[in-house]
Amino acid sequence: MKITTMSLAVTFAMTSLAASADEAALRQKAIDAGLEPVPYGLQQVEDNPVTREKIALGKMLFFDPRLSASGVISCNTCHNVGTGGDDNLPTSVGHGWQTGPRNSPTVFNAVFNVAQFWDGRAEDLKAQAKGPVQAGVEMANEPEQVVRTLNSMPEYVERFGLAFPGEEDAVTFDNMAKAIEAFEVTLVTPNAPFDQWLEGNDGAMSDEQKAGLELFIDKGCAACHSGVNIGGQDYYPFGLIKRPGADILPPEDKGRFQVTETASDEYVFRAAPLRNIALTAPYFHSGQIWDLEQAVAVMGTAQLGTQLSDDEAATIAAFLEALTGEQPTIEYPTLPLETDATPKPRL
Amino acid sequence: MKITTMSLAVTFAMTSLAASADEAALRQKAIDAGLEPVPYGLQQVEDNPVTREKIALGKMLFFDPRLSASGVISCNTCHNVGTGGDDNLPTSVGHGWQTGPRNSPTVFNAVFNVAQFWDGRAEDLKAQAKGPVQAGVEMANEPEQVVRTLNSMPEYVERFGLAFPGEEDAVTFDNMAKAIEAFEVTLVTPNAPFDQWLEGNDGAMSDEQKAGLELFIDKGCAACHSGVNIGGQDYYPFGLIKRPGADILPPEDKGRFQVTETASDEYVFRAAPLRNIALTAPYFHSGQIWDLEQAVAVMGTAQLGTQLSDDEAATIAAFLEALTGEQPTIEYPTLPLETDATPKPRL
Repeated sequence: MKITTMSLAVTFAMTSLAASADEAALRQKAIDAGLEPVPYGLQQVEDNPVTREKIALGKMLFFDPRLSASGVISCNTCHNVGTGGDDNLPTSVGHGWQTGPRNSPTVFNAVFNVAQFWDGRAEDLKAQAKGPVQAGVEMANEPEQVVRTLNSMPEYVERFGLAFPGEEDAVTFDNMAKAIEAFEVTLVTPNAPFDQWLEGNDGAMSDEQKAGLELFIDKGCAACHSGVNIGGQDYYPFGLIKRPGADILPPEDKGRFQVTETASDEYVFRAAPLRNIALTAPYFHSGQIWDLEQAVAVMGTAQLGTQLSDDEAATIAAFLEALTGEQPTIEYPTLPLETDATPKPRL
Repeated sequence: MKITTMSLAVTFAMTSLAASADEAALRQKAIDAGLEPVPYGLQQVEDNPVTREKIALGKMLFFDPRLSASGVISCNTCHNVGTGGDDNLPTSVGHGWQTGPRNSPTVFNAVFNVAQFWDGRAEDLKAQAKGPVQAGVEMANEPEQVVRTLNSMPEYVERFGLAFPGEEDAVTFDNMAKAIEAFEVTLVTPNAPFDQWLEGNDGAMSDEQKAGLELFIDKGCAACHSGVNIGGQDYYPFGLIKRPGADILPPEDKGRFQVTETASDEYVFRAAPLRNIALTAPYFHSGQIWDLEQAVAVMGTAQLGTQLSDDEAATIAAFLEALTGEQPTIEYPTLPLETDATPKPRL
């Protein structure tokens, strides 16, 4: 009995050692594949120093439905901070109950994307923030009207002054966008199991998730999905190897072609960032696939020319669940009070 | 010089004494008129012990758009905790961009109302909470579908179990409403300037606000608007003395008559609670009056048969601004994760 116990102990120790060596090798492989953890600390962005005053103002603006023509829709309507930073709809519902053309991307960790929107048409978050406010199918407002609305509320005027000190006329559409960017910069989700594992905590991911990570790299997913956001870094044709069906890739939406008008950009999209992907179904720009394993399988055939087995897709999906980070803690802002000068809602 | 200084000091002391006596008399007058401060501490309600677990669950439900058929509309859409607990619209926008028949009342301090809705058709908040979820022009959902949605998410199932211990099947439409009631019970706004003044802080209201309070009582407003909520306690015909125009009192909305089918209840409504009224324009069940002074003037002619002067209306409105309390501090909840079993949005 004693010998048996001893040999079991030895076997366990050897297994642990082997596991530990495997672990280190896999970790190095992940690093070599360009996978990075969400960094700690406040990010800074170009041309817009992030200050406490700007973040506080940006949070109000993010939650303020009065940025929309109707007074009904705020940034948070489609980028709901309680549901992974998106709206869990195929495509968002906006002004007049219209549906938009593409699935709402999560606002979480968006600061780490190379550019914003599915087609990258906004170079950063401050450029992005101006889009939905003006889009007819989203908030349907005009910059002049937004500025009029903001100027009608003394608390906003004061807060814009604090956020943009030294500017004679601080209440501008550009500054609204900069303040929203400053708030969005705080919407990062650190400490995902994958990040903890990458930083040395062997137990942070399950064996299945580690196997999924290895598959994710070996099958070639990490070729497009890397960096901090495990995606969001570059543009690729959707259907690189085999074009998916029209339900997933509607022919009328030509992706980045609409931005660059370059033939080679037809059906090109920014590789989706995969952080918190388990929270943000449905998937793809068309939002027609609700199941993460199915989305992985579609990627296999469309982008890699590989028919992943159900097991492989499930294992990769298990790894993707390890990309769910700590969700931001946000105190709901009490918004500035309207006055007689505040433009009335236009439904 | 010395004598002058002394006499000034004496004059000041006498004025203070006189003011202090006036102050005490006005305070007693307010108490005699039935005006009460918002009480401190957690309220308890009938048939629904308010617990920490129930509040936490109720907060999630309050912010969860998946209670609506579309997945777009939550309680907070029309009872926005950032804008005084209402939506600043004449009447709310709901499913399919339909507008509802009446102005959305604030959820803040609603626990102190005798009953809920403009016509009092729900006896309490748990009865009220079931209404908008099912109303076709609001969230347009069905109880069975709501229960299916909640049951599809393991975190909700667990939280219902914790909030309703000992119940075999805790995930019910009734329990959803009870949890929402428990959260709404926390949405009170204490320490308004009027409350501070009522509790002995002479400086908490301005002289104009005190004059407004006196007018509010002398003109007869407090006859209907009293209690903790300065209203919300009983039902009165709108147009008791003189019926307002059809813009303010649309003839097709017969108010409490629709609940009781009693002829004397035609155009009868619950007296509006006036707490935070400065935050919740537009006014009346029809939501057609945006200006508080104008709303006060309408009340003068319609309910009191008094043509208030502009000065009087402004002075009363100044008092009403002293009813704005401390807005609740709410951390935005991270909502339970959907599963494959979660019903899909139905737009």
